[in-house]
Amino acid sequence: MLLSPAADHEPADYRCPFCALLHGEPMRAPLPGDVIAERDRAIAFIAPRWWPRNHGHVLVVPRAHVQSLYSAPTEDLHAVTDLVQEVARAMRATYGCSGISTRQHNEPDGGQDVWHLHVHVFPRHPDDGLYTSVPYAAFASVEERSAYARRIGAVLARSG
Amino acid sequence: MLLSPAADHEPADYRCPFCALLHGEPMRAPLPGDVIAERDRAIAFIAPRWWPRNHGHVLVVPRAHVQSLYSAPTEDLHAVTDLVQEVARAMRATYGCSGISTRQHNEPDGGQDVWHLHVHVFPRHPDDGLYTSVPYAAFASVEERSAYARRIGAVLARSG
Repeated sequence: MLLSPAADHEPADYRCPFCALLHGEPMRAPLPGDVIAERDRAIAFIAPRWWPRNHGHVLVVPRAHVQSLYSAPTEDLHAVTDLVQEVARAMRATYGCSGISTRQHNEPDGGQDVWHLHVHVFPRHPDDGLYTSVPYAAFASVEERSAYARRIGAVLARSG
Repeated sequence: MLLSPAADHEPADYRCPFCALLHGEPMRAPLPGDVIAERDRAIAFIAPRWWPRNHGHVLVVPRAHVQSLYSAPTEDLHAVTDLVQEVARAMRATYGCSGISTRQHNEPDGGQDVWHLHVHVFPRHPDDGLYTSVPYAAFASVEERSAYARRIGAVLARSG
């Protein structure tokens, strides 16, 4: 399905930070060291921007540049879903968390701010206030991200 | 994958409200009039409990009783994902919203409170404050739910 004009928010000259990573020319983030799993049609990496009590959450994206859920081809959507499940299991096993939640945003009013479909996978902890807390203004540092990437990446490398 | 004991939160005598609907013996909610799409391995219905500025949101569930994302068989997960996409498109076309977001919760600390995997599909509006607002304490009335079910159900019946 093509996007209706009203639901298409990507500028004509958009530089996609996820495609930049995939094409070997990363922008400020995500960087190659953030990647925790690479599959045929999807990849997962530690998110650049963190929530205060859910450190190290993960983004899962299709390799294909797809703007949103509305227009995603079925094969890409299934690949993302499969990897979200893999990440959820690996996160539960390695982060010391006691729950996992996922979310996905479409269009600015839906909370989207990168024009390449992505699913957030969050580690959850007792009373973490994920929905009422505000993400940090600055990106997590490369070192903070790589510490999480190593832990979960080792499990995903074994299962992938 | 079996659930590890620590991630299994379903009581032995649990009466599942989604299975009750699917087996033709509905509990208080959801009711047959809430159903908007029935597919081979998944169904969608208007959620019983609403958020104040996101009325008529939808839950998509597998027909099989699966507790969480961790243990969901791939076929069920793909069926749920496909129907989430269908619902998102139909909701965008019928609700007068300007975005869609989805979320999915696992375990009590992850925000789960029904022990049958379900994905929330929310209509989004400018500055709706979805994440900081609190759902109504009472379920939406049967009449409120059916008004949304008729609108989106008509579109999904044509596409399904």
